[in-house]
Amino acid sequence: MSVFKGTKLTAALFGESHGEGVGIAVDGLPAGETVDFEELKAFAARRAPGRGDGVTKRKEADETEVLSGMLEGRTTGAPLALFIRNTDTRSADYAGLSRLPRPSHADYAAHIKYGGNNDIRGGGHFSARLTAPLCAAGGIALQILARRGVSVCARLLSVGSVSDFAPFESPGDFAHIKAGGFPVLSRGAEDAFRAEIESARTEADSVGGIVECVVFGLPAGLGGPLFGGIEGKLSHALYGIPAVKGVEFGGGFALAAMRGSDANDAFTVKEGEAVTATNRSGGIQGGITNGMPVVFRAAFKPTPSIGKKQRTVDLQSGEEHDLVIKGRHDPCVALRAVPVVEAVSALAALDLVL
Amino acid sequence: MSVFKGTKLTAALFGESHGEGVGIAVDGLPAGETVDFEELKAFAARRAPGRGDGVTKRKEADETEVLSGMLEGRTTGAPLALFIRNTDTRSADYAGLSRLPRPSHADYAAHIKYGGNNDIRGGGHFSARLTAPLCAAGGIALQILARRGVSVCARLLSVGSVSDFAPFESPGDFAHIKAGGFPVLSRGAEDAFRAEIESARTEADSVGGIVECVVFGLPAGLGGPLFGGIEGKLSHALYGIPAVKGVEFGGGFALAAMRGSDANDAFTVKEGEAVTATNRSGGIQGGITNGMPVVFRAAFKPTPSIGKKQRTVDLQSGEEHDLVIKGRHDPCVALRAVPVVEAVSALAALDLVL
Amino acid sequence: MSVFKGTKLTAALFGESHGEGVGIAVDGLPAGETVDFEELKAFAARRAPGRGDGVTKRKEADETEVLSGMLEGRTTGAPLALFIRNTDTRSADYAGLSRLPRPSHADYAAHIKYGGNNDIRGGGHFSARLTAPLCAAGGIALQILARRGVSVCARLLSVGSVSDFAPFESPGDFAHIKAGGFPVLSRGAEDAFRAEIESARTEADSVGGIVECVVFGLPAGLGGPLFGGIEGKLSHALYGIPAVKGVEFGGGFALAAMRGSDANDAFTVKEGEAVTATNRSGGIQGGITNGMPVVFRAAFKPTPSIGKKQRTVDLQSGEEHDLVIKGRHDPCVALRAVPVVEAVSALAALDLVL
Amino acid sequence: MSVFKGTKLTAALFGESHGEGVGIAVDGLPAGETVDFEELKAFAARRAPGRGDGVTKRKEADETEVLSGMLEGRTTGAPLALFIRNTDTRSADYAGLSRLPRPSHADYAAHIKYGGNNDIRGGGHFSARLTAPLCAAGGIALQILARRGVSVCARLLSVGSVSDFAPFESPGDFAHIKAGGFPVLSRGAEDAFRAEIESARTEADSVGGIVECVVFGLPAGLGGPLFGGIEGKLSHALYGIPAVKGVEFGGGFALAAMRGSDANDAFTVKEGEAVTATNRSGGIQGGITNGMPVVFRAAFKPTPSIGKKQRTVDLQSGEEHDLVIKGRHDPCVALRAVPVVEAVSALAALDLVL
Repeated sequence: MSVFKGTKLTAALFGESHGEGVGIAVDGLPAGETVDFEELKAFAARRAPGRGDGVTKRKEADETEVLSGMLEGRTTGAPLALFIRNTDTRSADYAGLSRLPRPSHADYAAHIKYGGNNDIRGGGHFSARLTAPLCAAGGIALQILARRGVSVCARLLSVGSVSDFAPFESPGDFAHIKAGGFPVLSRGAEDAFRAEIESARTEADSVGGIVECVVFGLPAGLGGPLFGGIEGKLSHALYGIPAVKGVEFGGGFALAAMRGSDANDAFTVKEGEAVTATNRSGGIQGGITNGMPVVFRAAFKPTPSIGKKQRTVDLQSGEEHDLVIKGRHDPCVALRAVPVVEAVSALAALDLVL
Repeated sequence: MSVFKGTKLTAALFGESHGEGVGIAVDGLPAGETVDFEELKAFAARRAPGRGDGVTKRKEADETEVLSGMLEGRTTGAPLALFIRNTDTRSADYAGLSRLPRPSHADYAAHIKYGGNNDIRGGGHFSARLTAPLCAAGGIALQILARRGVSVCARLLSVGSVSDFAPFESPGDFAHIKAGGFPVLSRGAEDAFRAEIESARTEADSVGGIVECVVFGLPAGLGGPLFGGIEGKLSHALYGIPAVKGVEFGGGFALAAMRGSDANDAFTVKEGEAVTATNRSGGIQGGITNGMPVVFRAAFKPTPSIGKKQRTVDLQSGEEHDLVIKGRHDPCVALRAVPVVEAVSALAALDLVL
Repeated sequence: MSVFKGTKLTAALFGESHGEGVGIAVDGLPAGETVDFEELKAFAARRAPGRGDGVTKRKEADETEVLSGMLEGRTTGAPLALFIRNTDTRSADYAGLSRLPRPSHADYAAHIKYGGNNDIRGGGHFSARLTAPLCAAGGIALQILARRGVSVCARLLSVGSVSDFAPFESPGDFAHIKAGGFPVLSRGAEDAFRAEIESARTEADSVGGIVECVVFGLPAGLGGPLFGGIEGKLSHALYGIPAVKGVEFGGGFALAAMRGSDANDAFTVKEGEAVTATNRSGGIQGGITNGMPVVFRAAFKPTPSIGKKQRTVDLQSGEEHDLVIKGRHDPCVALRAVPVVEAVSALAALDLVL
Repeated sequence: MSVFKGTKLTAALFGESHGEGVGIAVDGLPAGETVDFEELKAFAARRAPGRGDGVTKRKEADETEVLSGMLEGRTTGAPLALFIRNTDTRSADYAGLSRLPRPSHADYAAHIKYGGNNDIRGGGHFSARLTAPLCAAGGIALQILARRGVSVCARLLSVGSVSDFAPFESPGDFAHIKAGGFPVLSRGAEDAFRAEIESARTEADSVGGIVECVVFGLPAGLGGPLFGGIEGKLSHALYGIPAVKGVEFGGGFALAAMRGSDANDAFTVKEGEAVTATNRSGGIQGGITNGMPVVFRAAFKPTPSIGKKQRTVDLQSGEEHDLVIKGRHDPCVALRAVPVVEAVSALAALDLVL
């Protein structure tokens, strides 16, 4: 199911990497919301390839066509459908891959599921290209949230073994990232991250990374107990992004190594309001927002498509085979994923706020 | 929302820690399935308190009453409703807590959400007691899955800073855990884990832990791309367990620190079938099972209820206040959570298989 | 699926006619709502059998036990679970029915679906007895709606070939029905309806009927286009009531025989507001409420269980067979269904209002 | 919500009458299904205007573009997105309507819901034009069902006060309708229906009608009790079609006037199988299919857009006003709705079968 199903919002993704294009139909957006298309374009540009090193050489025009749901610059309340036509697609690069599933790619599992009928060109419907319409829809959600005092800000926390633990306090700390800068909070991190990525590229390899996201401005009292908790809803949405293999909230896995007396967020009074002195709960307690920033992280595995020789199995002959993947691939999907995490989180957050 | 909503299965949890009892209504179970109640009782006993050290002293009879959905020992196809009456509940322990939210507990967030109407005795609907009916329903799901060749096996991977990385190969490696033994794979780990828990208890503190779970026997081809992926569905279900703050699949967060050439699972041929030589994907690629064991981990924060003095805010006076929580509490919820993770994973896995 | 799935409300029905009892778990009710149990009892009494002629002789105590979700007379926001134990159940009456499916009953279809494992005693989970917990939950929804200015009022519009077309204007016109009187709007109708029912009973037969329901007080703007329309949601809910075979809104099927110039509801001004001069749309246009009363009707087939000799097929021998159904059966389910329609409509309306 | 949400299938409709176009994204279709586009075109032509009298003069090319989900003539298993660009749209016809809601149209209710931001040109998202993508998707579902032995056949049962009660036995009886003929079962009905429609047109009026639909070939055992019943699911889907105000199954409302001894479907043996001698249950008992044809009817109100002078209210001035609607409108939407009912029923039936 390629559909995000919120309580109020439903977003149906469609399209393939090397087909007509990729798109999304979003149902349940409020009516009368203006969309700043320049801002949207700038947001989409943050994930688009062709921005220099660290990302694939493939250039995409990524002109987003509004198929429905807007009139004179405002949402009408009817479903908003967006479509981005594919232009620069070289299918030849992928010829012959049909019999040789790429390790850790969706190829093999999809081949079994769809009986060999799935479009394998460029990963087809499993391509990271599907994050383009996600960013278009999520970018609009970001604008709607901003008017309601909610900011969704993400950054690259780590690439390979290098991390940037620079702290943050408010949306302002992310301003340069929103403006299109390299998505880190400490200046020094950019060089270290770029070096890590470049090193992987040079070796025809790839490298993983972690994206951290913060939602500022959500009121206390959203969410609910058990299967209705914020963590469950957000993680379900985040795992919708290709290559995510881990999601944690607040202290996350580190909490498992702590004592309660260290992990607990003591309450204190600030400007007359009850707040927590620390935020290891990530703004969520009992599945419900407590008014503190909602903080979470998504772990991205290294791009499975690498130039290095790998072993696979020929699905027709049933024999083992060497595989060298050609074509243009991001050595680090986590870098491009920063705005994607913002986009998906914005869709989930907007669904909570509506 | 306290309801697990699968594609075929819907499981509605209800009840409070200190009310009449706790229960669950499961819709969509196949008809004609026998239930071994002795086995179910043994399974429930694995999470029940009162089993020695490491768990709260509170004793629960935990007699599960079948309210509907069974006839002559078989499921009828109608909703299966289970109810467990509360017996040993000492409300007095919780008196006075209404004004003083416990740090990192649901108290404050729930107070805001429900306008102060929620039942705060023992955590009410947010209590870990709700995992009792989850285990009852999940225990039945486990039996149904077993008949279909699917095994769900969990173990305690870490407690505080101590870990047990002993490897596993098949469901047989978990046999002693299923039989009620301490849920670790290497003998030595039991003592180390018990020591860690006992140390926390002695200091009126608590400690976190990680539970690892493996689903053996799922065929390749289950799940789907994007928001329909196995990871999203399973994580949504797992976050339904109180105290979970992180969920990862296969290599999880460790993958983010790796190179693609190390992280990718090369395909190889084994007994004529295409399998992967390693399983860092955790049995899931592109959101779809690939026939390998599905492996994931859930991080449990330390029990927020600790005996140590903490700071909180009096919700009526608005002033800061010391808090010392009395009553009986597990120093390590992760220990008791092992069968709960199995139970919830079984519900999610059964939904995939049906 | 025995679960009502609204946007905010989820209500899971469970239980069997001759098992432990029948119940419902309702998730999503607002917190802090008081419940008048005397009023609830009076409401439930309107559907309970044993109120004189027209209904089955079977007596049910129908003591509703609150299993969870309430504290000191108020809803807590946690799931509200209600249970009604079965008392007066004579299984012997149903002995031998397992091989002989009753015509137009669920017996045969359920036998196929559940492979013969379903509980056939008294219809099991398909029994009209399941409407008891529906009424309990719906009765609470009615009280919550009343505080929000919404009234749900139903009446018996026809029994067999006799109809009561007396018009109505406001909730006040239904006051005597709410007070427990015979559910008709014109005095004369009671005798005619009773006679029709008594005639069917005397002949060991049954008779159908139509229930009309009006929801007063819903604001304009609820619902949505296409599959999100009010008609679709309400009809889905209403078909959840056993024996309903038709649902129509406003003019309904009669509109199909009309000209647009007769069917259209002209707008006019009343007390400064735009209203419609007629209400053939039943308060819904384009799937959205227009502020007029929402009017709909549900057609109930005659009780399939009749004393008259019928033809059926022995499922074991595969041969045709005579069947005479013994036991106590309502000759007209539509009469008892009046509060059930109110209850289900209240759940659906509350879901819209929340 | 413009989204059909089945258990396996999700179909998201989008688009407006006078915007870029109309489309649908269908998630959950099986992979490897061929699509006969000639057949699909012929099916779509059955609803398209411009086929002679009885339908609006507006001509639509209705070229359906496949945006995603197909490769070399087969479904890939990824979401199938279809788009139909609008061409012949004369917005001028609708100028000035924004202040004057058309009686019994969605105008007023939508104006309230969307705060005046909705696209009112030609009804926008509420236009019958949205049935074009429904037919495209449903037409594909029909082809997939046909391969599984399921036929969905509809006919015009009545127009205004004229009815065609000609009986049917098998899909063959509908062959001439499938081939594009006038959708009636008795020859004589065509003239009578055309006369009724022509009479309405001549008087600048419109007329309602009833569409009857039969699903042949569904196995026994699909569906479920209470809110999971076939009637609820199908009616929810059918009310997704604009102008439907009533839905009934089998005998429907007529059953309410009958005795049980007349209404019940006696079981009998035919070719060694248990079948019912009559089919007043419409193939559904207890919400579950019983193996007989599933029969239902949808009542369509007269087209609300009529040329006759009507009364409405000016939403800006708040005063009553005369209204004469110009533009091209079907005098009888029920006629064009015949394939639309087939299409929607096919989507719902395919969801049951998968």
